[in-house]
Amino acid sequence: MAAFSHTITLPVRCQLSIGFNHDPIKNSLKLNTASIRFVKVDALGQTASLQTSSEAILAENGSNPIEHIRQNIPTKKQFVDPYRHGLIVEGGVGYRQTVVIRSYEVGADKTATLESILNLLQETALNHVWMSGLLGNGFGATHGMVRNNLIWVVSRMHVQVDHYPIWGEIVEMDTWVGASGKNGMRRDWLVRSQATGHVFARATSTWVMMNQTTRRLSKMPEEVRAEISPWFIHKQAIKEEVPEKINKVGDKAKYINTNLKPKRSDLDMNHHVNNVKYIRWMLETIPDQFLEDHQLSSIVLEYRRECDSSDIVQSLCEPDENGILGRGLSGGNEMSLLNRFSSADETVQVNEFLGSLPLKCTHLLQTRGADKNEEIVRGKTEWKRKQSAMSFRSK
Amino acid sequence: MAAFSHTITLPVRCQLSIGFNHDPIKNSLKLNTASIRFVKVDALGQTASLQTSSEAILAENGSNPIEHIRQNIPTKKQFVDPYRHGLIVEGGVGYRQTVVIRSYEVGADKTATLESILNLLQETALNHVWMSGLLGNGFGATHGMVRNNLIWVVSRMHVQVDHYPIWGEIVEMDTWVGASGKNGMRRDWLVRSQATGHVFARATSTWVMMNQTTRRLSKMPEEVRAEISPWFIHKQAIKEEVPEKINKVGDKAKYINTNLKPKRSDLDMNHHVNNVKYIRWMLETIPDQFLEDHQLSSIVLEYRRECDSSDIVQSLCEPDENGILGRGLSGGNEMSLLNRFSSADETVQVNEFLGSLPLKCTHLLQTRGADKNEEIVRGKTEWKRKQSAMSFRSK
Repeated sequence: MAAFSHTITLPVRCQLSIGFNHDPIKNSLKLNTASIRFVKVDALGQTASLQTSSEAILAENGSNPIEHIRQNIPTKKQFVDPYRHGLIVEGGVGYRQTVVIRSYEVGADKTATLESILNLLQETALNHVWMSGLLGNGFGATHGMVRNNLIWVVSRMHVQVDHYPIWGEIVEMDTWVGASGKNGMRRDWLVRSQATGHVFARATSTWVMMNQTTRRLSKMPEEVRAEISPWFIHKQAIKEEVPEKINKVGDKAKYINTNLKPKRSDLDMNHHVNNVKYIRWMLETIPDQFLEDHQLSSIVLEYRRECDSSDIVQSLCEPDENGILGRGLSGGNEMSLLNRFSSADETVQVNEFLGSLPLKCTHLLQTRGADKNEEIVRGKTEWKRKQSAMSFRSK
Repeated sequence: MAAFSHTITLPVRCQLSIGFNHDPIKNSLKLNTASIRFVKVDALGQTASLQTSSEAILAENGSNPIEHIRQNIPTKKQFVDPYRHGLIVEGGVGYRQTVVIRSYEVGADKTATLESILNLLQETALNHVWMSGLLGNGFGATHGMVRNNLIWVVSRMHVQVDHYPIWGEIVEMDTWVGASGKNGMRRDWLVRSQATGHVFARATSTWVMMNQTTRRLSKMPEEVRAEISPWFIHKQAIKEEVPEKINKVGDKAKYINTNLKPKRSDLDMNHHVNNVKYIRWMLETIPDQFLEDHQLSSIVLEYRRECDSSDIVQSLCEPDENGILGRGLSGGNEMSLLNRFSSADETVQVNEFLGSLPLKCTHLLQTRGADKNEEIVRGKTEWKRKQSAMSFRSK
């Protein structure tokens, strides 16, 4: 690459000026053989100057220097990020982000949707890597992983939700990582009410590395282990001695949605169908009437295969015949069990009673091929009655 | 309602404690005849105590006191909100929020989706009302509107996007309101790069009031005018002398998606299909190949009728035969026009050239009834080629 001799100074940001005669984005189209002096004003109004070599930026991940400036991914560990409301905790290895539940993240009942919670888990995980100074690309791969052409692939995820945060509520999300076997990584989360410290949700997940070209799983290279293992801790958000395996749902499942096709808007930065879409497909098999009165309290996902934009997907759901859901959804005696409790004061007991007899479903997403089907993800969900539904019924 | 004598102190939030033996949510189920002393620790670690009468809370909007504490909607004007990264600007009447573009808000090309931008417009508008101390319910109605059983209904929206922010980018979103005729309100937005001040997007919208029960439009009551008119300013994000009317697309439109059914997850706090879903339905009629190479630069929406969960919707799209899109989508000469520009340095000129000959579509969403169809929303979109697509084609 050519030597850098040309320096361009981008305009200092003026907090109160709205009109802007200069178009830095158009001008900057020609910056790719220049070194860039970038002057910015931070949250506290202090001015920082950042000199960046575009060769260094381009060398590693192929992103262009303008993208780099606009994203401003740290190359050294950061302890606080005022814009993300993030900070490093847990003795320097964990990450905490404070988020406000936004109006479009809640459903008709004004509580955050499961999809929003999963989106926020993904966001905080990426921001943890962002803060670490290790982030090499858009999906949380470290610099060492980028050098080895490796990406992260999630193999299992377990989310428990005790209470859904409501619109406008401030929650603290903690996330941290640990070892999982020799070549994997565990990532956990804890979601708390900022006001009271009450735990709303917890989650754990396991991740392995995949070669981006061959799509084959990879051992963890030593240089990657050296990057990430200093961040590992033993703490677990959900204690799972031997994680329960999920049975395969047969083709004669009670609820089946067929012919599901990923849309352009379902694809993420990796050009694969986003995890959150999987969950939407899973939950859409469940009858509306049941969703009206119940909330998901736990979901386990076992990932088997990637899904891309050309796949045609089938979503199967089998209610667990040993739980109330099986009987409830089969026209059984769920209501008679609930009707034993009639006064509002007994709401909590009803809830605890249902807690000991969880309503469960087993799920499967698979691609429909000409000669065979291939599993994308198995799932297991647990449900409890909504408090509002219970008060209504008990009146 | 009974006199309040009983005071319950909720636990002070301990920043570093994760274990929590106390369940304030369960305990607080019985708080509805109590006045509540709520101790919280703010962003700067300062302790504030807030004494709230649950009668006052329940009187106005029927929400329960626990919800009120968890949401903590201000009853007086706030000038700064550290959690939302929000502040009052424009001499005390405008609102500015700094947001980070999150990983799940971007599409496969790593730029924020139009849906994400619209979600953020909605969020900042609500947060503006939140900060004003006027917020009476979940969809931006003021206390006076709640007393008059009125809700806001959007009648028109126009969004222009010059540049889409990318993943991790920090943007400043300004929003403010003005009068629109005698009984309406205009709300505008300006979205800028935080680093450079460059304007990415601007938007304007008009709102009227509707009686929540009768679903009929209402004049603006004097008490509501007294609440909101001190916030009105004349500034306009998009100058529109006489807003262009959108023609109705006929039933023989070039692209039609039929049998669209709202899902539970498409409903918002008002139990109506969310605006953002409308836009998804509109854009899904456009062929993938076109969306691959083009980005939306402008969208105008004229709302006609609400859509609820029982409606079955049809989305029609007619490319404008006077624009390149019409010819491009009809297998015409779009490529020959673009191929006149062959060197990378001419990218900007290509863009400017296309800017003068916009690619346009007219859209219609309507419900399919047994005897007649009813219009939900008319739309007009304008498109330009993506820079990446242009560089690729010109090689």
